[in-house]
Amino acid sequence: MAGYAMNKKDLQDRLRRIEGQVRGLQRMVDQDTYCIDVLTQVNSVTAALRAVGMGLLDGHVRHCVTESIEQGKGDQKVQELMAAVARFAGK
Amino acid sequence: MAGYAMNKKDLQDRLRRIEGQVRGLQRMVDQDTYCIDVLTQVNSVTAALRAVGMGLLDGHVRHCVTESIEQGKGDQKVQELMAAVARFAGK
Amino acid sequence: MAGYAMNKKDLQDRLRRIEGQVRGLQRMVDQDTYCIDVLTQVNSVTAALRAVGMGLLDGHVRHCVTESIEQGKGDQKVQELMAAVARFAGK
Amino acid sequence: MAGYAMNKKDLQDRLRRIEGQVRGLQRMVDQDTYCIDVLTQVNSVTAALRAVGMGLLDGHVRHCVTESIEQGKGDQKVQELMAAVARFAGK
Repeated sequence: MAGYAMNKKDLQDRLRRIEGQVRGLQRMVDQDTYCIDVLTQVNSVTAALRAVGMGLLDGHVRHCVTESIEQGKGDQKVQELMAAVARFAGK
Repeated sequence: MAGYAMNKKDLQDRLRRIEGQVRGLQRMVDQDTYCIDVLTQVNSVTAALRAVGMGLLDGHVRHCVTESIEQGKGDQKVQELMAAVARFAGK
Repeated sequence: MAGYAMNKKDLQDRLRRIEGQVRGLQRMVDQDTYCIDVLTQVNSVTAALRAVGMGLLDGHVRHCVTESIEQGKGDQKVQELMAAVARFAGK
Repeated sequence: MAGYAMNKKDLQDRLRRIEGQVRGLQRMVDQDTYCIDVLTQVNSVTAALRAVGMGLLDGHVRHCVTESIEQGKGDQKVQELMAAVARFAGK
């Protein structure tokens, strides 16, 4: 099992809430809501998604990466992790 | 009507695709997909959302802001715009 | 003259402070400062640079873009602006 | 000694180049260079700084964090790391 730091239920709750927010965005566009207000909501969904990403990274380091290092074979995991951090941080 | 640059149909199509991607994330978590793979998909949804945000900003400048300036009352719109750009760029 | 919103003196003061911060980073590395502390300082220099970028964008919209629109030839300026915003926001 | 992944000489070379770029920005502002061109250069300095940050993070994980985990006391280091990643990724 993947070792998510946010437990699975927390992750699923957050993703369901994000799904609802995206449907909310569709309604806003449908009702010709003022662009800046739609954009504010887009920012808030993006922030929610990034919190999920941060939770995934956190769990990954605490479980998979830590275990691999403890077993003396962390090199590849650390390399994979840093590539993921770079993509996540938008570099 | 709000002057979205991406036309309304394009925006709605993108938002519906994003909604599908968020449901895909829920399935990935449900099936204990490897964290790094879930994270890659989170990044891709974030990028799709930011493209929507960029399209909203673009339409806003081309329509609302341009019109306000043409009518000699752009000051407040420009101020609101720059605050939105700062939030969008995460400053 | 380019219409910077932060006036020229303010911009120069900020850039000189940033130059000093970058020299501070060199000293930190030279003295083998703990990585996380160096990273914190890197983040703070990045934030200072992005504030300069935001000030430049702001001045550009208030002056160059607004003027072009008032003269009925804003299209190209708006296009150039949105491309700059996209790059600045890291899209 | 702090275990930078980019070796110390590489880090210093990069920081010196960044210092030169910041001085270049001061000259651009001094000569009233077109805002969008100054902004492009600001983005390029920001990218260079973030590459330095990424190098620091990478070295930190490969050395300090890995060592702590191998010694069975990784918890605090991992927590500190994830807080640093969150700040670096601008969350």
